[in-house]
Amino acid sequence: MTFPLPPGSTIGILGGGQLGRMLAMAAARLGFDVAVLTPEPNAPASRVAARTFQADYEDPAALDDLADASDVITFEFENVPAGALEHLARRGAAIAPGARALAVAQDRLAEKTFLNAAGLATVAFAKVDVVDDITDALKQLGAPLLLKTRRGGYDGKGQVWVRPGEEAGAFAAIGGRPAIVEAPANFTRECAVIGARGRDGRIALYPLTESHHQGGILRRTVAPAPGSSDTRASAEAIAGRLLAALDYVGVLGVELFEAADGSLTVNEFAPRVHNTGHWTLDAGLTDQFEQHVRAVAGWPLGPTRPAVDVEMINLLGDDIAGWARYAVDPTCRLWLYGKPQSRPGRKMGHINRLGKSTRGI
Amino acid sequence: MTFPLPPGSTIGILGGGQLGRMLAMAAARLGFDVAVLTPEPNAPASRVAARTFQADYEDPAALDDLADASDVITFEFENVPAGALEHLARRGAAIAPGARALAVAQDRLAEKTFLNAAGLATVAFAKVDVVDDITDALKQLGAPLLLKTRRGGYDGKGQVWVRPGEEAGAFAAIGGRPAIVEAPANFTRECAVIGARGRDGRIALYPLTESHHQGGILRRTVAPAPGSSDTRASAEAIAGRLLAALDYVGVLGVELFEAADGSLTVNEFAPRVHNTGHWTLDAGLTDQFEQHVRAVAGWPLGPTRPAVDVEMINLLGDDIAGWARYAVDPTCRLWLYGKPQSRPGRKMGHINRLGKSTRGI
Repeated sequence: MTFPLPPGSTIGILGGGQLGRMLAMAAARLGFDVAVLTPEPNAPASRVAARTFQADYEDPAALDDLADASDVITFEFENVPAGALEHLARRGAAIAPGARALAVAQDRLAEKTFLNAAGLATVAFAKVDVVDDITDALKQLGAPLLLKTRRGGYDGKGQVWVRPGEEAGAFAAIGGRPAIVEAPANFTRECAVIGARGRDGRIALYPLTESHHQGGILRRTVAPAPGSSDTRASAEAIAGRLLAALDYVGVLGVELFEAADGSLTVNEFAPRVHNTGHWTLDAGLTDQFEQHVRAVAGWPLGPTRPAVDVEMINLLGDDIAGWARYAVDPTCRLWLYGKPQSRPGRKMGHINRLGKSTRGI
Repeated sequence: MTFPLPPGSTIGILGGGQLGRMLAMAAARLGFDVAVLTPEPNAPASRVAARTFQADYEDPAALDDLADASDVITFEFENVPAGALEHLARRGAAIAPGARALAVAQDRLAEKTFLNAAGLATVAFAKVDVVDDITDALKQLGAPLLLKTRRGGYDGKGQVWVRPGEEAGAFAAIGGRPAIVEAPANFTRECAVIGARGRDGRIALYPLTESHHQGGILRRTVAPAPGSSDTRASAEAIAGRLLAALDYVGVLGVELFEAADGSLTVNEFAPRVHNTGHWTLDAGLTDQFEQHVRAVAGWPLGPTRPAVDVEMINLLGDDIAGWARYAVDPTCRLWLYGKPQSRPGRKMGHINRLGKSTRGI
């Protein structure tokens, strides 16, 4: 495959959710076709893609079909089975971001170890294979600790707080699977940075944003984050260092904790477009979805400076019933994901509320 | 059908070109599914639509399928065969804009007659059924006149200038079909207004823009048009009066001639989203495609005030080969239509070049 891919090429996407949907729409805007592989019938991304292969992610025939149809393959979620990527790689498919970033991001222990090795601060953590590991960690790191499965889990699932005496129950609660424990994050604010790295190694960073969670689920993003230019510069340095250390191609989301003194530690990163970057859809020339398509297609990255302040609000579960209220609000852009069933906490759409012009920042 | 249509409803589109493609993307953003009916295999709109029925526009079974799949049906071009609309209407399908606007717009004689009856100025014109009608018109209206077929023809096709003595040749050149002759437009500038009317009768107008044609094909739009606020107000009044006179639902494009004294005459209107409105895609909260979807779905219309100056430039034919130059330009948003074959004059995509902020207009 020769990059840059010309318009008319096909971008393959593993996954059919709302991130795949918005990636597909950005790809179409640049003249690309999209092929989606998803086990879900009538998936949000399939409804805007030129082709869908509906099959399990490890179905070898479907992976072959996707590879045949696609000039480059990317993914919209980090828990792509390693077997799927290996199959595609054996077929000679071009995959971006690469298997390395995915492997690191899929395992919380590998992720934190990688971050520290790259010189990026995280909370203190310890590996947990058996109950005694939790007891040891509670002695070393103090209590309470947050016990998290190494793999799987998102939006606050697969994690539980643990104190001395609760080790066995906590370990059972997460299924007794390989895990880590983390010291509590000392933070006054949660933040995020969306960054991109092109095939030429160039990096483009969106400004730091402020994240507001409810029940472990992102509720709201304030972009750009209010605060000092030092903090913004530190956050951008972290994202840039991570992108380079991973030899990354594509868009990546980094979630950060900000302490009272303004210092930042990395919470986690996602090797994909990210909910904390949805504000970019209506803020300037290049949104995170177009940026990801540009990166994986070998195009130059686009400008990331926002033209306006934006507040992104997720529409979770039955929030979607209020669509008419947002449709009539002259400050809102509405993005709905076409999911037929609303469930509590399910991401059904989001709005971007545009504020004052930030041109000149 | 009860309006407003909730997200999850299906918008049917007759036609599969770039206008249908951008309509489909806007519909998806609002959580709608899209079903396309087009005779073209692998059409630009089909590549971003949930379903495509590939068939002739008058295929009754395909029209039934489209009607069954859709909660409302619209179109992306004005030359939908009347038989198709009649078939859909007999099936009880909701169609917007209505058959009336389409019938008027399909026939240049009906269009100009309707405009004049609504109190909107056009160039002088006369009906042509036989060669002698041209001779008579040349005596009455002067020479030269522009001979145009009443039906069909776009981008300057199906029309020819005629002077005394050339009547028979000119009439043969347009196929001897029912036609009109028009007096030359006395203009110093071509302009356009995109307007929308909702199911509740409310009207939303985008600001006047300046059109630059080459060889009968739109090359460039400057938005908003420089010039006096009187001219802008006159243009908006024309578009508003036309939308109301047609009892219109959806987006409509009005092309205008501006004379040296600032007076405006209507050149023609298109009962659909229009190339002169592509600038809206990157200028503000509601682009013309979303506006059209809002209108036909019975949603409230969105705000139309642009946040920035925009220059829209069509990429015609081999212009598309320069995609990499636009991809790297930090002032451009690139929209490509996914057409596999470039032909001279074929609309392959467009760019919106964003200029200075106009907030505060």
